[in-house]
Amino acid sequence: MTANSDEGMWLLNSPPREYLKKQYGFELKDDWLKNAMLASVRLNSGGSGGFVSPDGLLVTNHHVAADSAQKLSKPGLDLYNDGFYAETRDKELKCPDLEINVLQKITDVTKEVNAAVTPNMKPGEAFAARRAIMGKIEQDSLKETGLRSDVVTLYNGGAYHLYQYKKYTDVRLVFSPEKAIASFGGDVDNFEFPRMNLDVAFFRAYENDKPIKTPNYFKWSETGPKENDLVFVTGHPGTTQRLETLARLKHRRDYTLPYTLYRLRTLEAALSQYGMQSPEKARQAGTDQHSVANARKAFSGQLQGLLDPSIIEQKAKSEAALGEAATKLAPDDATFKNAIAQIADIQAKYREFEKPYGLLETGHAFFSPLFGIARHCVRMADELPKKPADRLREYRDSNLESLKFGLFSPAPIYPELERAKLTASLTFLAENLGGDSEIVKLVLAGKNPASRADELVNGTKLLDPDERKRLVDGGKQAIAESKDPMIVLAKAVDAEARRLRTRYENEVEEPERQAYAALADTRFKALGDTVAPDATFTLRLAFGTVKGYDIGGQKVRRHTTKGIVEHLVDGETVPFRTTFDQAFKKSAEMGGKEPFDLPKRWLDGKSKLDLETPFNFVSTADTIGGNSGSPVLNRDGELVGINFDRNRHGLVRNFVYTDVQARHIAVHSNAVLEALRKLYPAGRLVRELSGQRSD
Amino acid sequence: MTANSDEGMWLLNSPPREYLKKQYGFELKDDWLKNAMLASVRLNSGGSGGFVSPDGLLVTNHHVAADSAQKLSKPGLDLYNDGFYAETRDKELKCPDLEINVLQKITDVTKEVNAAVTPNMKPGEAFAARRAIMGKIEQDSLKETGLRSDVVTLYNGGAYHLYQYKKYTDVRLVFSPEKAIASFGGDVDNFEFPRMNLDVAFFRAYENDKPIKTPNYFKWSETGPKENDLVFVTGHPGTTQRLETLARLKHRRDYTLPYTLYRLRTLEAALSQYGMQSPEKARQAGTDQHSVANARKAFSGQLQGLLDPSIIEQKAKSEAALGEAATKLAPDDATFKNAIAQIADIQAKYREFEKPYGLLETGHAFFSPLFGIARHCVRMADELPKKPADRLREYRDSNLESLKFGLFSPAPIYPELERAKLTASLTFLAENLGGDSEIVKLVLAGKNPASRADELVNGTKLLDPDERKRLVDGGKQAIAESKDPMIVLAKAVDAEARRLRTRYENEVEEPERQAYAALADTRFKALGDTVAPDATFTLRLAFGTVKGYDIGGQKVRRHTTKGIVEHLVDGETVPFRTTFDQAFKKSAEMGGKEPFDLPKRWLDGKSKLDLETPFNFVSTADTIGGNSGSPVLNRDGELVGINFDRNRHGLVRNFVYTDVQARHIAVHSNAVLEALRKLYPAGRLVRELSGQRSD
Repeated sequence: MTANSDEGMWLLNSPPREYLKKQYGFELKDDWLKNAMLASVRLNSGGSGGFVSPDGLLVTNHHVAADSAQKLSKPGLDLYNDGFYAETRDKELKCPDLEINVLQKITDVTKEVNAAVTPNMKPGEAFAARRAIMGKIEQDSLKETGLRSDVVTLYNGGAYHLYQYKKYTDVRLVFSPEKAIASFGGDVDNFEFPRMNLDVAFFRAYENDKPIKTPNYFKWSETGPKENDLVFVTGHPGTTQRLETLARLKHRRDYTLPYTLYRLRTLEAALSQYGMQSPEKARQAGTDQHSVANARKAFSGQLQGLLDPSIIEQKAKSEAALGEAATKLAPDDATFKNAIAQIADIQAKYREFEKPYGLLETGHAFFSPLFGIARHCVRMADELPKKPADRLREYRDSNLESLKFGLFSPAPIYPELERAKLTASLTFLAENLGGDSEIVKLVLAGKNPASRADELVNGTKLLDPDERKRLVDGGKQAIAESKDPMIVLAKAVDAEARRLRTRYENEVEEPERQAYAALADTRFKALGDTVAPDATFTLRLAFGTVKGYDIGGQKVRRHTTKGIVEHLVDGETVPFRTTFDQAFKKSAEMGGKEPFDLPKRWLDGKSKLDLETPFNFVSTADTIGGNSGSPVLNRDGELVGINFDRNRHGLVRNFVYTDVQARHIAVHSNAVLEALRKLYPAGRLVRELSGQRSD
Repeated sequence: MTANSDEGMWLLNSPPREYLKKQYGFELKDDWLKNAMLASVRLNSGGSGGFVSPDGLLVTNHHVAADSAQKLSKPGLDLYNDGFYAETRDKELKCPDLEINVLQKITDVTKEVNAAVTPNMKPGEAFAARRAIMGKIEQDSLKETGLRSDVVTLYNGGAYHLYQYKKYTDVRLVFSPEKAIASFGGDVDNFEFPRMNLDVAFFRAYENDKPIKTPNYFKWSETGPKENDLVFVTGHPGTTQRLETLARLKHRRDYTLPYTLYRLRTLEAALSQYGMQSPEKARQAGTDQHSVANARKAFSGQLQGLLDPSIIEQKAKSEAALGEAATKLAPDDATFKNAIAQIADIQAKYREFEKPYGLLETGHAFFSPLFGIARHCVRMADELPKKPADRLREYRDSNLESLKFGLFSPAPIYPELERAKLTASLTFLAENLGGDSEIVKLVLAGKNPASRADELVNGTKLLDPDERKRLVDGGKQAIAESKDPMIVLAKAVDAEARRLRTRYENEVEEPERQAYAALADTRFKALGDTVAPDATFTLRLAFGTVKGYDIGGQKVRRHTTKGIVEHLVDGETVPFRTTFDQAFKKSAEMGGKEPFDLPKRWLDGKSKLDLETPFNFVSTADTIGGNSGSPVLNRDGELVGINFDRNRHGLVRNFVYTDVQARHIAVHSNAVLEALRKLYPAGRLVRELSGQRSD
């Protein structure tokens, strides 16, 4: 847990300058850092990206762009699977609800936030006070700067920083390859290496119908990285749990993860059964299926990690070591010990209502955007009349524009797909709470889950964005009068959902924050600032070395004519990069069968390609989900790759960093240029990436 | 619940003669019944069938034959998917472990069994006494007749009958069509109608290397059934829960079914992910995938049924009505009320250990034949030295031959598939009991589930049937000395597994039997013998009318060029049968894409077929899982169809019979002849079915 390795998703206002200097002889300059910050992009679809031209062009992953590509598609037009390229600028396609954020400034507001909470406050009061001061800081910032303003909780409550972002809501799709090459190998090869994926897509940000100017951007490297190069990853890692206590991790292992996997497998089954009904239904369910399968594989890896006794032991040892450090620092102070015990107590309490909370408030019982829309309509009627600081956090003024942007999105919703998803999730609700539970009876309203899903989807008018606007504009009265079954459902469960949320805030969130703040305090005193906070889907800087890894004595996956065979080998090394040639070979070995099929364009154009072009590469840099689409940079701050995945050994990185075999995986910058030049009619895009005129 | 409908899976020694006479004017003669009994067949792979020639030829479903077809396959030879036909008798393929049973005689032994249990016995004593007397009856029967002898528990403990079977273990595959036409529509159309499936396969039973003589067989009808015909189904329905109390059903709804679906979805995900890795792996996992998907769909339907308030209400009402009848019969006798209360109490107790019991003793934690083999080896060493009456039921002498037949089967087992299945099920174990549970620690032995599965499968020698024989022959000493990791695991968990089994027997099985016996007593007194017992995978007779059904105001599934579309219609009738033509049309509409692809033979041979040939048909007869492959007979006892499925409305038949829309689905006898004559080079088989010479 100390910075004796390439561990760390570092805050941009607290980067590991000394370690980089000492270990890599690299001087991290302010200009370099500033450019990295201003050229890095967060996408509200849950990924990262970076500007790669002065004209607002940005690169991310195909699988991050998937949400927009899917929403731009319709029966007969399938941008997600078939790809897209805008041959001229006026053909760039505006995404219905893609928002991007560009971080402008970070301010430490820890003292201000903590000052609002006094020791004699009860958890509920403390939570409200903290929410109020965070809301006030954000509100003031918004008023002063006009920027999207978020107070971010770091170290699980050890620190609070204000993040100010420029945001753009006119984002247009420029290029997206075929899914077959973007995620070649599909679910089978997800979280595996070697990989041969062109997992990239390009967007352009607009304002007032014109491309924005982005003087801070990453120059596209023609050569890409070499073996043993130092590289950096700037992106938005989603969540890690490295600083969580052993009790919290065991709670995850024994309660949260099993419940989550049960849920994901239920949804995955429903989506795959729906998709099997016809090619069009497969198209409709495509991106949902990908997200759910990806989450299932990631969480499965987490569970295997936490069920590995050596990892639990490692966590126990590091917790004990920190405890000893605390005792050394202040022999009579029981704060550390008490905080550890308190977090264990909190888990025992949380177990009692974690499922109802997840089902009703997080919304696991209602796996459909239609319910989410209904809930927002219902809650906005209640929340917006309140003072911003008193509202539920998602309805604070500084977030309202983004919220409405998504809520009123004209993106298509397919009623039959929603029926299938709702049937699955309503059934999951009943499976978890039982048929006689009051919540279940309230939600199902005298029907079984399948019939209730029919009733809700057949009866709702919320597929129409105008109806959503009408309800939001109409406020309390419009909601009170609405007979829309989805609105009626959202109203019916709201009291109980809010009660569970308050319980979570008072019995879990706030007491955990206080306890973790105490742990963070000990950690700072014992280890200084050599530990980065857990990931929070905010901008971080990671770094590492481009290198392959040994799989001696380990299981290896080989692709043979008989399919994938796993066996043990001695001392074999997986090279740091793959080539185009390997993609063609592997596809041939797998009989060209999905998910190892290649697009016609690639099969036809094979002879045009330099088959030795590096395709994907790995490095030891510390990444996690949310880092998808992160720019990978060299010492000069040039873009040498686009991060898109980790290997299976990296799945435990939620809990511990390891670089023995764990690697993140990126598309090589040169592979993108070679493919665009030889296979796609994408001269305009290539010129822009090469720093020639953009048109 | 009374015989005012076509409800009932009737015992062959207690058929509904009066109702058939009154309702259908059909006189059920002893000869008819005797022929039906002696020509009906039970397959140990879990289905039904019937002899259709005097030379041991028997018909069943393709999906019942799947287990054998899979075991006869290997890399490069895929009988399950590609089909098989033995052009000459000497090419008929001996199945590695298929056993068939033909019922010879039923004897009521209720008095004898109940006499062994005295009122002052504790549950454990009562259970042992009952097991002992059942064992003794079976043992005596075996000695006297040489027949496989099973004492069957009926009415959940209301009656006990001795079933004596001839058994055959040399069963050879004669014909099996391609999977694409046998289960056209796959999981999408499973439990749906209209259907167009050639879900049939033919075997022949041998003794001493010669076909057996079967003077009792069903004559194959060239014409098949007409609309409104009375038909009979003779087969082996697996399990129903119609006589269970409301408390038991709610326990199923809220505990057993959610756990079961969680388990099945976990396995299905693991199998489908394995199969995606290559065509060969898809082949290996094919039949497991089918079974698990089929179970998942059936149990999902059951859960939707029990979550339907109208069904729960119906069960509550019928339980109340029976209570009133009991009071009328004996106003001061609380036996009925007490039994109802006792069954509710039992469920509360069962909840406490249902999961560990299922995981450890039923074996849900070990989804691999290898563990099952290991457990049998370990337990046989303990059980065989005991007196037969004291052994666990599966090791009684009368069952031992069948057990060894399966245990020493040379059927292939694929190590990589077993690793994937064990990883999934060991993970499922940890998910359910938590990483700190003693059972989990014992089973995982210091590894995570994936590594533990590797260790077990890589280290075991049980893939070799000779090693199994060696261990069984070596008895206690061989087991004690064995270091085989799978044997070591089976030994390690055996004490706890047996403890859970005893707890189940004493706290659930025996008390439930006694309580249900009291309920059965009331039911007999109030309703006479007009209620058939719940299904027990023993031979039953059902009957019904061949007819379509109304779907007015109901959701309809339509196959369009855009895929399957469900919508509401008024007063539409689904005809009682489909035709060959519909299969071709549907496949074309679905773009010929799996699971709606047709075999090349069918596409090429289309013009040879009479496209108006009836393909599948439905009737109101009362069936359930296990009835797969059941002969469907006309008044003359001729075979007019082969049952293979129910429609979605029939999924609630576990709990209630309904004939409004619920139907079982059968392959039309003429469809089989037409396909065999025109598409397959199966002249030999056609001649035998037509009553001409068999060669």
